[in-house]
Amino acid sequence: MKTLADIGEDELIHRLVAGLKLDRSVIIGPGDDCAVVKAPAKAGERLLLKTDTVVEGVHFTTETPPKLIGRKAMARVISDFAAMAGTPCHALVTLIAPPQTPVKRVLAVYAGLREMAEAHGVNIVGGETSRGEQLILTVSLTGTVGEKSWIARSTAKAGDLLLVTGQLGGSIKGKHLRFEPRVAEARWLTENLPVRAMMDLSDGLAKDLPRLADASGLGFELWAPDIPITPGCTLEQALGDGEDYELLLAVSPKMKASMMHQWHCFSPKVPLTVIGQLLPLDGKSTNKLKGGWEHFR
Amino acid sequence: MKTLADIGEDELIHRLVAGLKLDRSVIIGPGDDCAVVKAPAKAGERLLLKTDTVVEGVHFTTETPPKLIGRKAMARVISDFAAMAGTPCHALVTLIAPPQTPVKRVLAVYAGLREMAEAHGVNIVGGETSRGEQLILTVSLTGTVGEKSWIARSTAKAGDLLLVTGQLGGSIKGKHLRFEPRVAEARWLTENLPVRAMMDLSDGLAKDLPRLADASGLGFELWAPDIPITPGCTLEQALGDGEDYELLLAVSPKMKASMMHQWHCFSPKVPLTVIGQLLPLDGKSTNKLKGGWEHFR
Repeated sequence: MKTLADIGEDELIHRLVAGLKLDRSVIIGPGDDCAVVKAPAKAGERLLLKTDTVVEGVHFTTETPPKLIGRKAMARVISDFAAMAGTPCHALVTLIAPPQTPVKRVLAVYAGLREMAEAHGVNIVGGETSRGEQLILTVSLTGTVGEKSWIARSTAKAGDLLLVTGQLGGSIKGKHLRFEPRVAEARWLTENLPVRAMMDLSDGLAKDLPRLADASGLGFELWAPDIPITPGCTLEQALGDGEDYELLLAVSPKMKASMMHQWHCFSPKVPLTVIGQLLPLDGKSTNKLKGGWEHFR
Repeated sequence: MKTLADIGEDELIHRLVAGLKLDRSVIIGPGDDCAVVKAPAKAGERLLLKTDTVVEGVHFTTETPPKLIGRKAMARVISDFAAMAGTPCHALVTLIAPPQTPVKRVLAVYAGLREMAEAHGVNIVGGETSRGEQLILTVSLTGTVGEKSWIARSTAKAGDLLLVTGQLGGSIKGKHLRFEPRVAEARWLTENLPVRAMMDLSDGLAKDLPRLADASGLGFELWAPDIPITPGCTLEQALGDGEDYELLLAVSPKMKASMMHQWHCFSPKVPLTVIGQLLPLDGKSTNKLKGGWEHFR
């Protein structure tokens, strides 16, 4: 089987970029020193920037089907755009791999990247390759969001309800490779509910909820019996497993209860659940939870 | 000595972003799902996008002073913006490191990153961290360039003269860690000479010149005795060592010879040398050279 060492960098890149679909926003795609793309056309529109990485032995294993590795690398970053209520647009991909990696494996990784990118209208406009000891994919993504329509983590208020999409826990059984970034869901939610803060859950509710609360200078109360748990999982797993890639929202308590029904009509397969409330940080509430994913431990 | 495993990811990120200098283009910096920045204000201005990576054992060693690792990671990407005649603006930094890495080492790497970024007006607006077997830094950079002022590799014409800044070869002795990205030089050159194509030399003239010629569908003639060689190096090293981070330009033969003198006044320490010519690809000219850096061999 041919390896990266057999074909070399130029031939590898040639194969990786062959047939890439690029829309009219791309003036110069892969192959030059930089990509050249059109800036947002609407006055006041903002740029969103995000980078993320998946590492062999951390985010996937040597046994993971390569197409799902690429899919995951792209979907993770798109999920961050969902969390800001933005639209992803242009991606740069860095591939690090041992020279003895089969070419076929790398092409399959890219097929997964490209499918996920195309499904969300993302153009892959450039990248970089290097040898290294592990397979590592880093995806950097730029996109746009309306001047006043992006949602941060830091703008929640005391009294806001905490809502979560989907079910939590047990992602390792497969969802961590096959999740759907909640881009459309985020758009509906921010257009229909008084959403004050939002993030995506990548390291587990136990790790991520305190981050959102901290960013807004608040504590919280978690209504444990209400947490939507993936069938077969424990509460501890729902809090700590991580890689749920669901949305965590802080919504004004003035939200109409009827909107929960309308959500169900919009997205019958993805539950939306109230799981707690943000509170002033005053000794009665907490801003800490045990569990969650820790990268360096 | 404290390691990344001792302090954990959140504390590490807290220390890495403390005191970051951000200008008024940054609406949301590090800490949210995405960074939010202002889009270019001028109508028609283009966005430039580029990512690049430095890997332990490939682009630096375990003995390299950590500040110079960070400096190099940022300077390499800025060099690509020079090659497009653009202005870099917002950076995302991905750090991969073994858990036993001393915190002090990572902080020094970031000090080097930040110094180089600040010297070029680049805002570090976000990033990502993960554990891995080697220290790896990936920098993604966005920036701007005027609608008609960017310079590609693919727009050279037969008869264009080939020019190069600086001296080539022997970068491993230190320049690969301490080079200055040619941003100001690129601006002067594209404003004062009829530059038709440009790139930066990262893999060696022997590898990079054929890339520029190929992109423009041309061959070339290299005037070997004229190549500016770093003192103490051979011609073979000047062609093949790589990591020169100098500019290679294709300039219309109508350029005025007097401009070489004006360049000398603008930049007395950096030579500018005519080293050959682009030619139609017709059997008399070549589009291949031996040597240069190959990532997977």
